[in-house]
Amino acid sequence: MKIDILSLFPEMFTGPLNESIVGKAIEKNIVDVDITNYRDYTQNRQHHVDDYPYGGGAGMLLQVQPLFDALDAVEEKNKDLGDVILLDPAGRKFDQTLATELSMKDHLTFICGHYEGYDERIRSRVTNEISLGDYILTGGELAAMVIIDATVRLLPGALGNNESAPGDSFSDGLLEYPQYTRPSEYRGLKVPDVLLSGNHQKIDDWRQRESLKRTFERRPDLLNKIELNDMQKKWLRDLKKYGRS
Amino acid sequence: MKIDILSLFPEMFTGPLNESIVGKAIEKNIVDVDITNYRDYTQNRQHHVDDYPYGGGAGMLLQVQPLFDALDAVEEKNKDLGDVILLDPAGRKFDQTLATELSMKDHLTFICGHYEGYDERIRSRVTNEISLGDYILTGGELAAMVIIDATVRLLPGALGNNESAPGDSFSDGLLEYPQYTRPSEYRGLKVPDVLLSGNHQKIDDWRQRESLKRTFERRPDLLNKIELNDMQKKWLRDLKKYGRS
Repeated sequence: MKIDILSLFPEMFTGPLNESIVGKAIEKNIVDVDITNYRDYTQNRQHHVDDYPYGGGAGMLLQVQPLFDALDAVEEKNKDLGDVILLDPAGRKFDQTLATELSMKDHLTFICGHYEGYDERIRSRVTNEISLGDYILTGGELAAMVIIDATVRLLPGALGNNESAPGDSFSDGLLEYPQYTRPSEYRGLKVPDVLLSGNHQKIDDWRQRESLKRTFERRPDLLNKIELNDMQKKWLRDLKKYGRS
Repeated sequence: MKIDILSLFPEMFTGPLNESIVGKAIEKNIVDVDITNYRDYTQNRQHHVDDYPYGGGAGMLLQVQPLFDALDAVEEKNKDLGDVILLDPAGRKFDQTLATELSMKDHLTFICGHYEGYDERIRSRVTNEISLGDYILTGGELAAMVIIDATVRLLPGALGNNESAPGDSFSDGLLEYPQYTRPSEYRGLKVPDVLLSGNHQKIDDWRQRESLKRTFERRPDLLNKIELNDMQKKWLRDLKKYGRS
């Protein structure tokens, strides 16, 4: 996969792109990331990328010219821009389904805004507007990093065997069950007996029930989105009958 | 505000904490950030922080001991841990309301997990479980950065005058209206005439209507959460009657 990032703060990406799964995926040539500073495409001597809003108001807006010219340069170099993603609160909410969709693309180009906002005309070059959630960030950089991390880890070969993700939350539509590792007791806190029993059928039942219980208690909305099996339906009836504890 | 971060990848934070608003807030002593690598608190010679799950299964889990000892060290140094935040898909969904709540705290401590998951007992030290959204990240680092960015920019003095955020999306419960800056025409794309008219009443009306329209078209759920004035109610009736265009 090719990823292009258009940003005024390329140094923000240094840590996140060198470390962890994304760093390893770059090393393994699973993904190739280029960052373009669109300040290099300004046509004024001070290299300003922002200006006052038409019609008045507080804050500065990103101008259309440096971003358009930077997009042209990326497009010329790569023959295409792929999906052009703008991080915006009005966009489609990012979730695991969207991460999976993006992981099937060959080329993603992220436009990271900054300051108060951007000239509306920038949207005319955008194919996907994505929102990370209902909150305001200083710029699009962190949002781009989050989307890249969630997407790249789904690419074949990106996760090692020890990091494979079959039991992840959301992978079966439910939250993950509680997990424990050594020691079996620490500062008086004990691992549930069933996990030490060696009885795999019991362990599997316990995990499935705990996963359902946690989802019921914390994210009941997720239960409406999946098909429950007969055992899960029975457990859910019990949970509703005997309460949440 | 004091922020402590417990992470296995301190270098990931270098860029994001040096640049942009958070970097400036640190310079201005508005916020003080310390990062603790909890790998330094392991008690085994190989400095392993993870181990296999009890009961079997793929993936490795963070052990409770290094994290508890790291939390103890941070607590001793600061006299308290403040709010202890765990990034977890089962947590409360992060939004602007939660960012505002966090911005009123004196001390936040972030636990950044990694690998497949963590020992359930770690939750016993946690006061706030927060989810960034319904997707899986490689680790908690990026999620912590997002929460820190959204929170720190709300601290008094963090944003400069040119960056002040009165028209932000969500600040009045609606998405932001389209904005434009110079030039008034670029590659055939024009700024709406009303914004060049100099008539401030008309400009204000246009912006309010566009803000409502964008919210109606893209995030109608937000309209149920706010109290509309009479003019907005009339515009909304027109939008529903004459369609979305």
